[in-house]
Amino acid sequence: MQENDRDLLPEGLGDRLPQQAWASQAVRRAAHDVLASHGYTRVETPVLEFEKALASRMAGVQVRRMFRFMDPVSLRTLALRSDITAQVARIAATGLAQAPRPLRLSYSGQVVTVKGDGLDPARERLQLGAELIGTDSIDAVAEIVELAIETLRAAGATGVSVDFTLPDLVDTLSAEALPLPAANIEAVRRMLDSKDAGGLVDAGGETYLPLLYAVGPFDAAIERLAAFDVDGVLASRIAGLRAIAARVSDKARLTLDPSERHGFEYQSWLGFTIYADGIPGSMGRGGTYAILGGAGLDPEPATGFSLYPDRLIDVLVSGSSEERKLFLPLGHDREVAARQRAIGWITVAALSEGDDAVALGCSHRLESGEALEI
Amino acid sequence: MQENDRDLLPEGLGDRLPQQAWASQAVRRAAHDVLASHGYTRVETPVLEFEKALASRMAGVQVRRMFRFMDPVSLRTLALRSDITAQVARIAATGLAQAPRPLRLSYSGQVVTVKGDGLDPARERLQLGAELIGTDSIDAVAEIVELAIETLRAAGATGVSVDFTLPDLVDTLSAEALPLPAANIEAVRRMLDSKDAGGLVDAGGETYLPLLYAVGPFDAAIERLAAFDVDGVLASRIAGLRAIAARVSDKARLTLDPSERHGFEYQSWLGFTIYADGIPGSMGRGGTYAILGGAGLDPEPATGFSLYPDRLIDVLVSGSSEERKLFLPLGHDREVAARQRAIGWITVAALSEGDDAVALGCSHRLESGEALEI
Repeated sequence: MQENDRDLLPEGLGDRLPQQAWASQAVRRAAHDVLASHGYTRVETPVLEFEKALASRMAGVQVRRMFRFMDPVSLRTLALRSDITAQVARIAATGLAQAPRPLRLSYSGQVVTVKGDGLDPARERLQLGAELIGTDSIDAVAEIVELAIETLRAAGATGVSVDFTLPDLVDTLSAEALPLPAANIEAVRRMLDSKDAGGLVDAGGETYLPLLYAVGPFDAAIERLAAFDVDGVLASRIAGLRAIAARVSDKARLTLDPSERHGFEYQSWLGFTIYADGIPGSMGRGGTYAILGGAGLDPEPATGFSLYPDRLIDVLVSGSSEERKLFLPLGHDREVAARQRAIGWITVAALSEGDDAVALGCSHRLESGEALEI
Repeated sequence: MQENDRDLLPEGLGDRLPQQAWASQAVRRAAHDVLASHGYTRVETPVLEFEKALASRMAGVQVRRMFRFMDPVSLRTLALRSDITAQVARIAATGLAQAPRPLRLSYSGQVVTVKGDGLDPARERLQLGAELIGTDSIDAVAEIVELAIETLRAAGATGVSVDFTLPDLVDTLSAEALPLPAANIEAVRRMLDSKDAGGLVDAGGETYLPLLYAVGPFDAAIERLAAFDVDGVLASRIAGLRAIAARVSDKARLTLDPSERHGFEYQSWLGFTIYADGIPGSMGRGGTYAILGGAGLDPEPATGFSLYPDRLIDVLVSGSSEERKLFLPLGHDREVAARQRAIGWITVAALSEGDDAVALGCSHRLESGEALEI
């Protein structure tokens, strides 16, 4: 085997060296402190479980994106988790089924997919988020959107923007006001998604054309959506969007793209994507969804968000400041060194004559019980 | 599929519900703060990589204990990590090959094995540790043992004890002072390991019998080991053990079991196992080892430790105190709520008339801008 070959990492998988790993730790701590302060208590889930369990509690979970393999103990198929939200839904429906609602849970951990997503080759990502279980009301969405923005800012992001969508828009419209042949619904969805006016007309969706213009900065786009909704079938959704927007309009730039579907496999009436300045692609997404119940039990409404902070962490690295490190020479007083750590110093103890304070990144040196600048 | 079936977790895999997850976060934060204060900077590694890379940098890594499966992208075999130390060794030999030595790195993350270990059915564990790369000297071991004890105490463990071993003891003795037929070496190792005096004699290892009595509390056992070592082939190891013990004897109970091998697949001259009061089994282990170099390059000496805090976390849960949570009634002043969080309150906002402060675990209620006890 070649030297390079044995150390090569698989495509889309990588290490974090010290500066990046420091930023990663800082992001996770800041995010969890915000989530905890709003009453979201943390849960932890296994990195792999039965494939069927990962897909059983939410509609639209794609097991095809997961690494799957046989468990030699149970002889059943295991899968690496690709989305912690589905695991939290399982916990809410089982171990915490009796906990009072609304139930506020948070989590973070690594998720893995077989292939990267579009232009992003990463196959392992940090997922961090919150789920508010038992409600998908306007107030629930407003709390979740506001919390997503606050979490992202605490993690170091600036210039946050939120793009709202209505994942069940075509279903709602075609059921009542603007009927479509069942065979055409998927094509209409697709053409709206790709903003293809000609294709939309070809698919028999000419009555849906105005939706292509209800897109952009929130205040103008929501007016165009309301003007389009002459029959009022979207009235409660539009009122909800306005109320949610009013709650967060001073914290983020808001846009509307009512027919956007990408990434909203399991969301119900509302979805949102969140962005930050200087970070390519989105930072995460969220919205309302349903947790499937057991036999004879109704689905339970829920609202949540997930952030994928890896790219933010890459940006934060370049901005992180130098540490103040104290070199402890051979034969130093260990009690003094412990006191220096207790007041916040990072210490680096010499282990041999050759250990060089400057090469080891130290800014200070312990001499006669004091930290002297090098 | 049955209700219970689809939510069943595979044997040896489980969730952490809020109290446990809170303890887990507290343990990781406290541990990393101690490691960082001693100049150990964090690295993060992928949860899976090429099977060959995971086994290439250290002798004795057992790929048979790992989940392995084909990568559809590279068409090569991937494995779930079962030991982060091997990944840190890879980083030290590649991405951080040019970093000044001694190089101090720390890490934590989930590791997975195909089967549980002996009496412990867990197949996923939290591994947390530190590696000191570039040296396996007595001072290096002393720093690592002391740091392992301090980390474990900061994580909440009490009554820490450390059991030292000499992983290459039989190799060293049989090479010089007490020669053994090559065919008998493995049997002698095994009989020493199982403390089987009769079997040891049968294996031709009667000259090794005194080792079975150089076991127990450190001060007495090291004297017996020294008395046994009439030719002085163990003299430097014994002196090293004494120096290391002197450094930590006021921080932990110390014992010696010079021929213990379990869990020391890749350690060189020194290994140790660490225990805490009230925690079944060991909390972790450490010692000296070698990082294999590339073609024509010498192995690099290293020293480190790994802790597996899951059982400690289970114990800490029962001891954790109640949180002070502030209920925010419907229509509360959001500015006031934000100020309460800023001074340390956990807030829980009402989302509907039905939300009950007491059921939601709140100890206080926001009224007229003040937190009143319920």
